[in-house]
Amino acid sequence: MSERSTLGIIAGGGMLPGLVAAACRSEGRPAHLLALSGHADPAVIAAAGLPVDWIRLGEAGTGFAHLRRAGVAEVVMVGPVRRPSLAELAPDWRTARFFARVGLKALGDDGLLRAVVGEIESEGFRVVGVDQVLEGCLAEAGRQAGPAPDEQAEADIARGVVVARALGAVDVGQSVVVQQGLVLGVEAIEGTDRLLARCGELARAGVGGVLVKLKKPGQERRVDLPAIGVRTVEAAAAAGLRGIAVEAGGALVLGRAEVAAAAERLGLFVVGITP
Amino acid sequence: MSERSTLGIIAGGGMLPGLVAAACRSEGRPAHLLALSGHADPAVIAAAGLPVDWIRLGEAGTGFAHLRRAGVAEVVMVGPVRRPSLAELAPDWRTARFFARVGLKALGDDGLLRAVVGEIESEGFRVVGVDQVLEGCLAEAGRQAGPAPDEQAEADIARGVVVARALGAVDVGQSVVVQQGLVLGVEAIEGTDRLLARCGELARAGVGGVLVKLKKPGQERRVDLPAIGVRTVEAAAAAGLRGIAVEAGGALVLGRAEVAAAAERLGLFVVGITP
Repeated sequence: MSERSTLGIIAGGGMLPGLVAAACRSEGRPAHLLALSGHADPAVIAAAGLPVDWIRLGEAGTGFAHLRRAGVAEVVMVGPVRRPSLAELAPDWRTARFFARVGLKALGDDGLLRAVVGEIESEGFRVVGVDQVLEGCLAEAGRQAGPAPDEQAEADIARGVVVARALGAVDVGQSVVVQQGLVLGVEAIEGTDRLLARCGELARAGVGGVLVKLKKPGQERRVDLPAIGVRTVEAAAAAGLRGIAVEAGGALVLGRAEVAAAAERLGLFVVGITP
Repeated sequence: MSERSTLGIIAGGGMLPGLVAAACRSEGRPAHLLALSGHADPAVIAAAGLPVDWIRLGEAGTGFAHLRRAGVAEVVMVGPVRRPSLAELAPDWRTARFFARVGLKALGDDGLLRAVVGEIESEGFRVVGVDQVLEGCLAEAGRQAGPAPDEQAEADIARGVVVARALGAVDVGQSVVVQQGLVLGVEAIEGTDRLLARCGELARAGVGGVLVKLKKPGQERRVDLPAIGVRTVEAAAAAGLRGIAVEAGGALVLGRAEVAAAAERLGLFVVGITP
């Protein structure tokens, strides 16, 4: 975080916007939140203690004006944003102009995120990745916590990688759960929490499975990287899993020390892999 | 169903074993049920009104003896079988010999089904596909019921085909739900009912999505074809979907007339596609 300009934080769901806000505060960097209503968690945004504007997803014009007024030059987009239907979007003029160019079909396409990044940059902002703002949040290679995966766990991870890559190649999901070679579940838009809850019910007798999270090939690295946190470790343990494998350099570990402590406490491994 | 020999029906879950039994009765063909405990539905098996032996999955030796005693020469395998863990399997000697050869890893692999078919044939039985026993149960090409899919529905079907093929190529799942270009859900082992229930909760505003079911490339066609029935149509309607696309010649439509009637009543389309 070398620049001292005001950082614009475009905030989707989850705890990540709060973590970025806390990092800015601890480094004394000015920051401004642009929270997406219906996606950002009001409690997380309120607790961030930063100036904030709320906009709907369809209010790109208003959002750009807010960012300019706050003196923002650099923007980070953090936290999941459920892609809306056109009916929910109710686009303002600026948003409609964007979709007139990229096509409404983009609403169902991950190419949308790349287009959004390009659009923000066309307004003169610089879009940076969360890993440039939150030091050391990218998953590292190798074992991060817990016991070493045994042969079955390694085989399950390898199978999960094959499936996650096939899914990623068609722009779907980032997470797969494999137990004893069998794919228990595959994530689309339901989120990892729901995936894990379902796989807990579907698990077979014998040794537990693994959660594999990769970024999609060609995924815009500055937005929407897969992430794990303490809650992911706890949900994985509740689902009977033996560990979590994330893509080194391609996934976020939110609260590295806390994640490692939770994994040690619950006896799960966390490993960074290079598929 | 040209042969008049006793048909052995190896019965997994769902209503399919009952349909096959009914077809045999209506044609006066003798048949014998080998029901897999923990998988076959006792109510369906009892209602079939055929001689039956129950075995565990791990009792291949006992199963072969039952089939021989019943004078079976031709065997059909119908209804889903959840793949067991080794702990659940508790293999008998004959089953263990099989796994000693194909490897325990096969438990997590769809190649297992092909190996099972080969094993049954090595015992002198002929394995036939359910479509050779149930006349006219294979999905046909073109619109089977309901309104014609509009442009968005056609686009959603095309997207579903791309994702289902990618999944099938890595030997996972057969069903995908797509709404307005967005993949709402992907089926692993949870079953289509759970997939549909979840996608109903995840659906966005605006026009509803579609369910796409394909067989996997290279799938052993004599076993485990994807199937839809009246319940699938009802669950799809409850999830807010507008229609169902199945692979022509690669999926079963169980109760063609009833499925069409349910689709017309609920306003859903059912189409057979050739991906």
